[in-house]
Amino acid sequence: MEKNLLLISNSTNRGEEYLGWCKEMIKEFCDRHNIKDVLFIPYAGISMGYDIYETKVKAVFSKLGLNLYSIHKEKDPIQAVRDAKCVAVGGGNTFHLVYELYRNKVMTAISERANSGMPYMGWSAGSNIAGPSLKTTNDMPIIEPESFNCMNIVPFQINPHYTDFFDPKHGGETRDERLGEFLKVEPTMWVAGIREATALLLENGKLTLIGRDNKMKVFRGTMEAKEFSLNDDINFLIS
Amino acid sequence: MEKNLLLISNSTNRGEEYLGWCKEMIKEFCDRHNIKDVLFIPYAGISMGYDIYETKVKAVFSKLGLNLYSIHKEKDPIQAVRDAKCVAVGGGNTFHLVYELYRNKVMTAISERANSGMPYMGWSAGSNIAGPSLKTTNDMPIIEPESFNCMNIVPFQINPHYTDFFDPKHGGETRDERLGEFLKVEPTMWVAGIREATALLLENGKLTLIGRDNKMKVFRGTMEAKEFSLNDDINFLIS
Repeated sequence: MEKNLLLISNSTNRGEEYLGWCKEMIKEFCDRHNIKDVLFIPYAGISMGYDIYETKVKAVFSKLGLNLYSIHKEKDPIQAVRDAKCVAVGGGNTFHLVYELYRNKVMTAISERANSGMPYMGWSAGSNIAGPSLKTTNDMPIIEPESFNCMNIVPFQINPHYTDFFDPKHGGETRDERLGEFLKVEPTMWVAGIREATALLLENGKLTLIGRDNKMKVFRGTMEAKEFSLNDDINFLIS
Repeated sequence: MEKNLLLISNSTNRGEEYLGWCKEMIKEFCDRHNIKDVLFIPYAGISMGYDIYETKVKAVFSKLGLNLYSIHKEKDPIQAVRDAKCVAVGGGNTFHLVYELYRNKVMTAISERANSGMPYMGWSAGSNIAGPSLKTTNDMPIIEPESFNCMNIVPFQINPHYTDFFDPKHGGETRDERLGEFLKVEPTMWVAGIREATALLLENGKLTLIGRDNKMKVFRGTMEAKEFSLNDDINFLIS
C-alpha cells in the first residue's frame, strides 16, 4: 500500500507561533486522509515533560478540528499504535525519542503501520527517525538508545533544520562538514538536508518538497551537494 | 597514583595554525613528565584519514622535540597502549573515536593507564572521552559505537568548544538548551563547558583551567550555571 508521510523540518520559525508556519499543511494532510484522531508521540520532549508537551500540541491541533491524544497516557502503547488512524511524532531530542520508542517497544509497530499506509507526520526529530537511522541528527546524545536504527519508512537520511550558516569566530564544524563525515562512513546513502519552513510530502508514490521557498540540499558520498526547489523532481530519493 | 591529564578544548582557533595556541602547553606538559615519545590515537579523524592525520600532528610535535607515532600502524594496539609513555587523542568525530576505541579494544587499556598516572592529553573529542560518557559531545552520531561509556578518568562530563553564541535567525537549540536536556536525564552530573583556547589540567591532584582568559561554564541539574576564570578553585569537580 502507498505510504502517506508528512516530514516537517521544524515546528517553529523564530518570532512565529508554535507550529504556526505548518499548521495548514498538517490540516490539509489530515483532511486528505479523512483523519480526525491523531496519536501523539511526545518522547522527544525531555525538557518540558510529556504532559506539558501534549497540552501544547493539543491546543494547536484542536483549532484545526483534530483530536490529539498522547501515547504516554495509553496503558498499552503497542496496541495504541495498532489502533491509531494517524501518528504524529513531535520534535525535541532525537536520542531521547529513539530511546523511548525502543523502551516502549513501538519503533517497529509504528514503522509497520506507516509502511502499510497509515498517515504519519513528524517534525524535527519526528522527521529524522523516518529514515534508516538517527545518524544525521543535530541533537546531543544525552541518553543511549538500544540502537541507532530507526523506522526506515523512507530509504534516505534526513537532516532537519539544515543550515549553511556558521559562526566565523568559532572553531566547530559546519553542518556540511558534519554531514561529510557521515558520508565517509556511509558513502552510498542519500541525505536530504531540509531547511527551516520546509517539509517532505510522500503521497501517491510521489515525493515533493513543500512549504516556503527554501531549497533542499541533497548529499551523497563525494558527489557535489545539489539544491532542489519546491517544484523539482526529487523522486530519485525513493527509487 | 596521581593522574596527569591535559584536556584541551580545541586544536585550532580560526585564523591561527593547527595546534598553534596550545603547542607550548603540550610541550610544557611533556617536559614536566619527561616525555619524549607520544602514542597518538587518530580514530576521530574520519574526514582526513589516519595517515594524513598522523602526518599533520607529527609535524607539530616534531618541532616541539617530541616523537609521535600512531596506534593505527601498531600490530598490537593493546600492547602499544600498555607500553606507551604518554597517549595523545586527537579531535574529530567523537562517535567514530569511541567506535574505534571499542573495536580495537583499547578504551579500557587507555583508561587503566591514565588512572595509573600515565600522562594523557586530548583535544576536542579526545578531551570529551576523558569523562564518564560521550553524552555531551557536539558531534554528529555518524556511526554507532559499542557503548556511550568512555574512559571516566575525570568524574565529570566535558563539553568542548563550549559557546554561548547562537544564530538568531535559526530555530535550532542553543548549546545551553542542549546541555539542559542532558542535565534532565543525569541531574547529579557536573558538566564543564570549556570554551575555545582553554584547557583543563590535572596534576598533583589539582584541577586548573589554563589557556587564554576565556571563562569555563559549569552546569549541574537545575542549578544556575556558574562561570570560572583561570585562577578560580574548580577542585569541586573532582572531589
